[in-house]
Amino acid sequence: MRPDWINDPIPCPSLTHQTRAMDRQNQLTKPPGSLGRLEEMAIRICALQGRDAPSLDQVRIVVFAGDHGVARAGVSAYPQAVTLEMVRNFSRGGAAINVLARQLGAHLEVVDVGVAADPGPLPGVISRRAGFGTADFRAAPAMSEAALAVACAAGAEAVRRARESGCELFIGGEMGIGNTTAATALACALLDEPPQRLAGPGTGLDPAGVARKVAALEEALTRHASALTDPWEMLRHLGGFEIAALTGSMLAAAQQGMPLLVDGFIVSVAALTAVRLRPETGSWLLFAHESAEPGHRAVLAALQAEPLLRLGMRLGEASGAALAVPLLRCACALHREMATFVEAGVSGGVNKARKKGI
Amino acid sequence: MRPDWINDPIPCPSLTHQTRAMDRQNQLTKPPGSLGRLEEMAIRICALQGRDAPSLDQVRIVVFAGDHGVARAGVSAYPQAVTLEMVRNFSRGGAAINVLARQLGAHLEVVDVGVAADPGPLPGVISRRAGFGTADFRAAPAMSEAALAVACAAGAEAVRRARESGCELFIGGEMGIGNTTAATALACALLDEPPQRLAGPGTGLDPAGVARKVAALEEALTRHASALTDPWEMLRHLGGFEIAALTGSMLAAAQQGMPLLVDGFIVSVAALTAVRLRPETGSWLLFAHESAEPGHRAVLAALQAEPLLRLGMRLGEASGAALAVPLLRCACALHREMATFVEAGVSGGVNKARKKGI
Repeated sequence: MRPDWINDPIPCPSLTHQTRAMDRQNQLTKPPGSLGRLEEMAIRICALQGRDAPSLDQVRIVVFAGDHGVARAGVSAYPQAVTLEMVRNFSRGGAAINVLARQLGAHLEVVDVGVAADPGPLPGVISRRAGFGTADFRAAPAMSEAALAVACAAGAEAVRRARESGCELFIGGEMGIGNTTAATALACALLDEPPQRLAGPGTGLDPAGVARKVAALEEALTRHASALTDPWEMLRHLGGFEIAALTGSMLAAAQQGMPLLVDGFIVSVAALTAVRLRPETGSWLLFAHESAEPGHRAVLAALQAEPLLRLGMRLGEASGAALAVPLLRCACALHREMATFVEAGVSGGVNKARKKGI
Repeated sequence: MRPDWINDPIPCPSLTHQTRAMDRQNQLTKPPGSLGRLEEMAIRICALQGRDAPSLDQVRIVVFAGDHGVARAGVSAYPQAVTLEMVRNFSRGGAAINVLARQLGAHLEVVDVGVAADPGPLPGVISRRAGFGTADFRAAPAMSEAALAVACAAGAEAVRRARESGCELFIGGEMGIGNTTAATALACALLDEPPQRLAGPGTGLDPAGVARKVAALEEALTRHASALTDPWEMLRHLGGFEIAALTGSMLAAAQQGMPLLVDGFIVSVAALTAVRLRPETGSWLLFAHESAEPGHRAVLAALQAEPLLRLGMRLGEASGAALAVPLLRCACALHREMATFVEAGVSGGVNKARKKGI
């Protein structure tokens, strides 16, 4: 029952541009490899953009917001009302991601994919509601087939809008009280790990709250065990509207050949879902940061991902991804603008010369 | 025989602003602590700048260049001529740090503190030459008392120029073929560690080169053992002109209450020298990145420093520090611009409410 578009073809990044970029990196006036991960990033962005002069001037950040029935199990440090309150805060420009988007000169969009109470029209907020929050997955599947399709499509549409606006890098973020629990449930199912191993404090649960979270996860995973037959059904039974939208955005970004920068734990679980649905998606993903949430490491390992930053962040809203953008922009600028050894009249390395018998 | 100015008073960062900044961080619309190290950085910058609204718009990068007599021992992957060639590359804008300074909108200045051949007048290069490269420290002290004073003063002068231009963050960098060897010698003396434990490949030495480096270090440390009585004499016998200038810049920055962002291995060795000379200097230092050079970790540990980035970089030129600037700017912007819970009408955390008995 997956929507047909999910199986649309996914292109390969450009090997030609990758090879040329590797060659150029070795000609720039620096010891080969001395820019470390910035070299790797510049080369990957050349391959993803199919360009010799990579650029990330046009960055689009989309925060998907949704509520979670399981929030009533007391699995968050904050009441469910905070999801709506934060959507209003986004709309007024006062949240962390607003500040970061302004710093980056990035376009920020918020998509309501199913906050518990409909916020009505708000500036900068697009309504693509798949429901009034998900069902409590301890008792029922988190969402229906139809709602899942709506949420996934909301993510794909956001990528289409980004593409049409000339976006060079897509960033998805999330807001939803209880969504660390949903993401952890999904990660447990995808990785076949027990809740005890992956559950953490989220936005700041105390130990009693983490114990409630583990109990809720165990209940849900037991109840739905026989239905968790593939990543799509795992997403439907255990996910959230914003997690589904993020998954949809990644599939669509890969299909459209748009590089996508992955934020923290929750977005990484959506990435793992997308990669399990369509493994070719992985080629189009860059990883920004490792969050403080303990389960993130296991998810990153399954994705063979090595994020750029580790700053102990655990906010969500795409904030960790936003912080990696300046690093990627610097990597692109260095690749484009540094002089080569020949251009600058700088002598090459002695090791290299020796190897050549000079 | 230390110049008198080195003992000038060093102010304390503002505890008042630190306390107010900590308080504000807990009122912003995010779970407390969820911005991880960005919160810590914002609070420190408030304390260092003595401001409630921290800002790093005005960043000054100064690259000190000098040559090293020990380069003739074959301890670098590049010939000594590269120091001068890179000074010309800096002047023409083609090096990595030129690209990064442009990306940041930072002012870049190059100070020749003793390249082996005098480059003569070059745009953007200031001449404060302490000699024609240091002496080969296997045979003699790297520099005279007088040369050391000149080099240190060149660093202090650069900080004074920065201050007069309204600089809010000072970054020192270095260029000098062989200076990983000089910095390692100095680190061995300061930390009382054998060369075998701290020597690494620098800009890209092969294993035979690293063995030559260890031999040169052992020879120098043995020859000067009885003279290495304090950090000042260690710097004079084993350091380099650019390392001395960096040390001078840190002492001067601390004396003038100017925050300074420390780059990689070589700059960190200068920082350790400065802190050993004047422990209060440490309060004014922020640490940008951990380089790929293996000795860096030991130096950072001695400084109790936890850098923000680990990107496998080993280029020098202040390139790693430059990359941390956008993170610090984001930390400042978040601190200044995010809405508080009260302003945004967002509910506080449940844990916190419970602790208050609500």
